[in-house]
Amino acid sequence: MSTPDPRLSINQGTVKHASLAEALRATADAGVQAIGLWREPVQEVGLSTAAKMLADSGLRFSTHCRSGFFTMPEGPERRASIDDNRLAIDEAATLAAAGAPGSCPVLVLVAGGLPEGSRDLIGARERVRDAIGELAPYAKAAGVQLAIEPLHPMYASDRCIVSTLGQALDIAADFEPEVVGVTVDTFHIWWDPDVLASIERAGREGRIATYQVCDWKTPLASDVLLSRHYPGDGVIDFASLTRAVETTGYDRDIEVEIFNADIWAKDADTIVRETAAGFGAAVSPHLAASVAG
Amino acid sequence: MSTPDPRLSINQGTVKHASLAEALRATADAGVQAIGLWREPVQEVGLSTAAKMLADSGLRFSTHCRSGFFTMPEGPERRASIDDNRLAIDEAATLAAAGAPGSCPVLVLVAGGLPEGSRDLIGARERVRDAIGELAPYAKAAGVQLAIEPLHPMYASDRCIVSTLGQALDIAADFEPEVVGVTVDTFHIWWDPDVLASIERAGREGRIATYQVCDWKTPLASDVLLSRHYPGDGVIDFASLTRAVETTGYDRDIEVEIFNADIWAKDADTIVRETAAGFGAAVSPHLAASVAG
Repeated sequence: MSTPDPRLSINQGTVKHASLAEALRATADAGVQAIGLWREPVQEVGLSTAAKMLADSGLRFSTHCRSGFFTMPEGPERRASIDDNRLAIDEAATLAAAGAPGSCPVLVLVAGGLPEGSRDLIGARERVRDAIGELAPYAKAAGVQLAIEPLHPMYASDRCIVSTLGQALDIAADFEPEVVGVTVDTFHIWWDPDVLASIERAGREGRIATYQVCDWKTPLASDVLLSRHYPGDGVIDFASLTRAVETTGYDRDIEVEIFNADIWAKDADTIVRETAAGFGAAVSPHLAASVAG
Repeated sequence: MSTPDPRLSINQGTVKHASLAEALRATADAGVQAIGLWREPVQEVGLSTAAKMLADSGLRFSTHCRSGFFTMPEGPERRASIDDNRLAIDEAATLAAAGAPGSCPVLVLVAGGLPEGSRDLIGARERVRDAIGELAPYAKAAGVQLAIEPLHPMYASDRCIVSTLGQALDIAADFEPEVVGVTVDTFHIWWDPDVLASIERAGREGRIATYQVCDWKTPLASDVLLSRHYPGDGVIDFASLTRAVETTGYDRDIEVEIFNADIWAKDADTIVRETAAGFGAAVSPHLAASVAG
């Protein structure tokens, strides 16, 4: 088995049915150097235990997934969301400090969908901007970079009203790049006619907090949330997208985050091995080091 | 039962299981004044018979659905597609001439997805532009307006690589507006942060060939092609979108085109009645006449 790309990071969502311990072990055992964690399995063992486990694994920490969900109008539910986002910021800071050198204190933010019964997309967008405005000072104090993630427009109504990289950058523009960046995830933005220009802009504005790769193919899974594939198994052109990201100078780890019931059904070692193989074939050849070398 | 909105047009796709004769009868019987036809049921009876049936119905003809599908590289398959598109142009001209006064010789174009095995989205887009360039003189001679339809990005890989109204307008910009316009379909573009600006631009550039309304809601149908709903049954803000279209001076018929297995299972009379009711409640209040009145 060849050595995994040194910049590959396994997002814990890819091995959803593994415990934190199992995810860390399978990732490290495969020779992968970095991992992105999810809040629920971290909270299951407790933050300080999770941080210790991460430190013991020797892995870098690439992102914390995920927080956000603040499109609702003012009220107790919104306050609870803001409070929970502050907690997520604390988690991201603690985990990044516990990870190996090169870890990134990045918290991925998914905006949330339209509130129940609402058709006011524009109002919901404004409330996202307001929420980030509330959180930014807290994130800055914690040294955490918030990473607004545009999600594919098929999730616009029920999950994320931020649908394009350009829109995420427009929201981020009100804030310092070290505090508010964006998530560049191929699955969500590959179709966008402006995608290459938006990646260039994101780089120029210093906003690329994390680059994430997984593939798109049809027919979509009946639950469209679970329709993500290993890099190379679908139609996404990882060459142009990866080169665009690398050209900006992005040099952090690159996560593979896949939600796919068929993949989740495999054991963690198999998933990590297959992920590394897909990444090596579809993404690695387009990384700056490879292109230069 | 109240009288249907005089600008409502029933797209034949909404009553998919009805024959042409049945679709025309149910539409006219309900007091709806216009219909958009599909190629297959027209071809089933033959064009001249279809034209006579349409004329006898007394209905206006609002669009012909649909042609396009020309993302493939040069070769026999592409030639066959271009030939078939010329045939569709002829059909649209004949049907518009047969329809009641106010009929529109509009042919809806769906670009097509990525060719099998291809990841070259940019190349596919160029081939769409080239195909329209080939067809434009033929359409102009026939007096037919081609209506490029951006489809929701969830169809980008397998059905239509034109995903936003802005992108459709960029392609159309190379041609005369009377020959190449765009389809504004709420289902496909409601999520777009630029949608209102793009509608304004489409109007300013004289490109709105047809305005089509149906609703979006989640969870999506397991076949995402069939996830369209009556206006008012989902989350789309028909107020802002319809006003934006009307403000441009658009005064043609407005089609309701729904693909939904549960709706298709009903009889045509019921579907037309429910469509008219949804349109009356969700769209009519925002039409220029209503707003002015």
